[in-house]
Amino acid sequence: MRRSLPDIDTFVHGIRSADRALLGQAITLVESAREDRQAMAREIIARLHSDLPGDTFRVAVTGAPGAGKSTFIEALGMHLVAQGKRVAVLAIDPSSAMSGGSILGDKTRMEQLSATEMAFIRPSPSGDSLGGVARKTREAMVLVEAAGFDTVIVETVGVGQSEIAAQRMTDLFLLLLIPGAGDELQGIKRGIVEMADILVVNKADGDRVKLANQARAHYLNATHLLPMKPSGWAPEVLSCSALENRGVPEVWQRMEAFKAQVQDNGWFQENRRQQARYWLEDTLDAGLKDLFYQHPEVKARLAALEPEVLAGRISAIDAAMQVLAAFKKGL
Amino acid sequence: MRRSLPDIDTFVHGIRSADRALLGQAITLVESAREDRQAMAREIIARLHSDLPGDTFRVAVTGAPGAGKSTFIEALGMHLVAQGKRVAVLAIDPSSAMSGGSILGDKTRMEQLSATEMAFIRPSPSGDSLGGVARKTREAMVLVEAAGFDTVIVETVGVGQSEIAAQRMTDLFLLLLIPGAGDELQGIKRGIVEMADILVVNKADGDRVKLANQARAHYLNATHLLPMKPSGWAPEVLSCSALENRGVPEVWQRMEAFKAQVQDNGWFQENRRQQARYWLEDTLDAGLKDLFYQHPEVKARLAALEPEVLAGRISAIDAAMQVLAAFKKGL
Repeated sequence: MRRSLPDIDTFVHGIRSADRALLGQAITLVESAREDRQAMAREIIARLHSDLPGDTFRVAVTGAPGAGKSTFIEALGMHLVAQGKRVAVLAIDPSSAMSGGSILGDKTRMEQLSATEMAFIRPSPSGDSLGGVARKTREAMVLVEAAGFDTVIVETVGVGQSEIAAQRMTDLFLLLLIPGAGDELQGIKRGIVEMADILVVNKADGDRVKLANQARAHYLNATHLLPMKPSGWAPEVLSCSALENRGVPEVWQRMEAFKAQVQDNGWFQENRRQQARYWLEDTLDAGLKDLFYQHPEVKARLAALEPEVLAGRISAIDAAMQVLAAFKKGL
Repeated sequence: MRRSLPDIDTFVHGIRSADRALLGQAITLVESAREDRQAMAREIIARLHSDLPGDTFRVAVTGAPGAGKSTFIEALGMHLVAQGKRVAVLAIDPSSAMSGGSILGDKTRMEQLSATEMAFIRPSPSGDSLGGVARKTREAMVLVEAAGFDTVIVETVGVGQSEIAAQRMTDLFLLLLIPGAGDELQGIKRGIVEMADILVVNKADGDRVKLANQARAHYLNATHLLPMKPSGWAPEVLSCSALENRGVPEVWQRMEAFKAQVQDNGWFQENRRQQARYWLEDTLDAGLKDLFYQHPEVKARLAALEPEVLAGRISAIDAAMQVLAAFKKGL
């Protein structure tokens, strides 16, 4: 029994008029493992792409588990909604590849934000690989922007590769930190600190205010040692208490200052161009590998040849050339 | 005017009987940018592969510039030659992609070793990418082993990605260090220290003996903190003076102890299997990308669509699907 889907026109017009149900269904098509549904999603994205707003703001928010990402995103999101902005929260969680579902971006963790029509919250897609999860999030971003969400927050857990994917689809990279815990305790790799445009020491409340000030001084020092970024923006270190809703408007003010500066100096546009090139190559690579490894002739040849290569009986290059020849002939 | 090449039979028999001139010419075929010469090299490798000796020893030697890699390899190589071993020195130098030639493995730096018939020294191939350079070195390794060289040393500069490629084609990873300089001063990344099976503090001579002992203690401490390796071998830290030829036989003795242990516990064989799988996938990926990006239809479509994607007029996924469809139809 196949559930009947709206047609592409319905999706396109629905999303353009900010129909949340159709938006959600379209993202489900993007995330589908079924080729026909993916093809439908691609068609919807292609139709919507021609008149996307260019002036959206895409922000990566990352931090170790326990840094208070949900509370921060809720506080920031409510502040933006109060200013009339429309906020979408997406997520890239590579662990969702294993678990088949993610707690990131979970609506139950952002009660206020998920209750307003001005916000749209979507948990991380699942997938076989980080690359696949990230591509789906990037496509969902096109859909939410087409539906009029002007500020897109991409949430990740700041402990692995997903930050790089998040950076490649956003304009600003924000790292949330906890007072009183060193980088290593937080599981934050040095490379992630170096990626950040704005570092925010969260939980600067109660008896942690002094610790938060110390952490701020530590990260200020660390960021001053970093080489200049191509954006021309010098990373800033701020503090806030998302829980007590203090300092969050000031963080947003610096985020807007970042956007104004990089729009002015051209980096905003240049970065989006570079990102578009990256996603084109990434999508081509993934599609090409699919085409290849799903090909029956390739599958058969590989199944026969791989054991020979592993046993050292034939060379990797010899086997590779045989498989490639079979692919070329069999297409 | 085309220089006439020996035929494949001549290459195969010549290399099997350790003809150095034919071996050198065959490696030149591997390194050639010409498709017909590469195809000839592949055929030679395929013919030789069936009866390769399985008992060779492949060793990566790396270290920062100035660590004394050439002097060390010369001293180690002469020690091995004196024991009747036949030693080949290959190199992976990613900078040769730019310069079109490499000083690594340069014969002029290893005067004694290059003068003996028991040794074969070959500078790094050049190439457009590290991946291409590494694949050529890996194929040259098949040729030198077929020619009876039982110990293959792969030299790299220990400052970048080339060590990972070297590790993926060798049984043992040896890191050469300088006394009196910290990791960071030496440009050695932490990950490279973690890859090493044997660390050797070189230049333990003259007034550097004390510094060398301190460095040894420092690295002993650092390696003790590392997690157990899948080989089951606990990294060792030694010192030597390659210049004064002291300590090098002791280093070799530990290298042989490593080989004996991992042959005994099965890691040697398992590692080579994993490496074979890696090089099969790597060669397939590279060949597939070649096939794709060299395809006239792909080139034409990409040239037309990429500017549209960069300008944000069409989506990356839409463009990618169009290019992939053109490739599929046009093959």
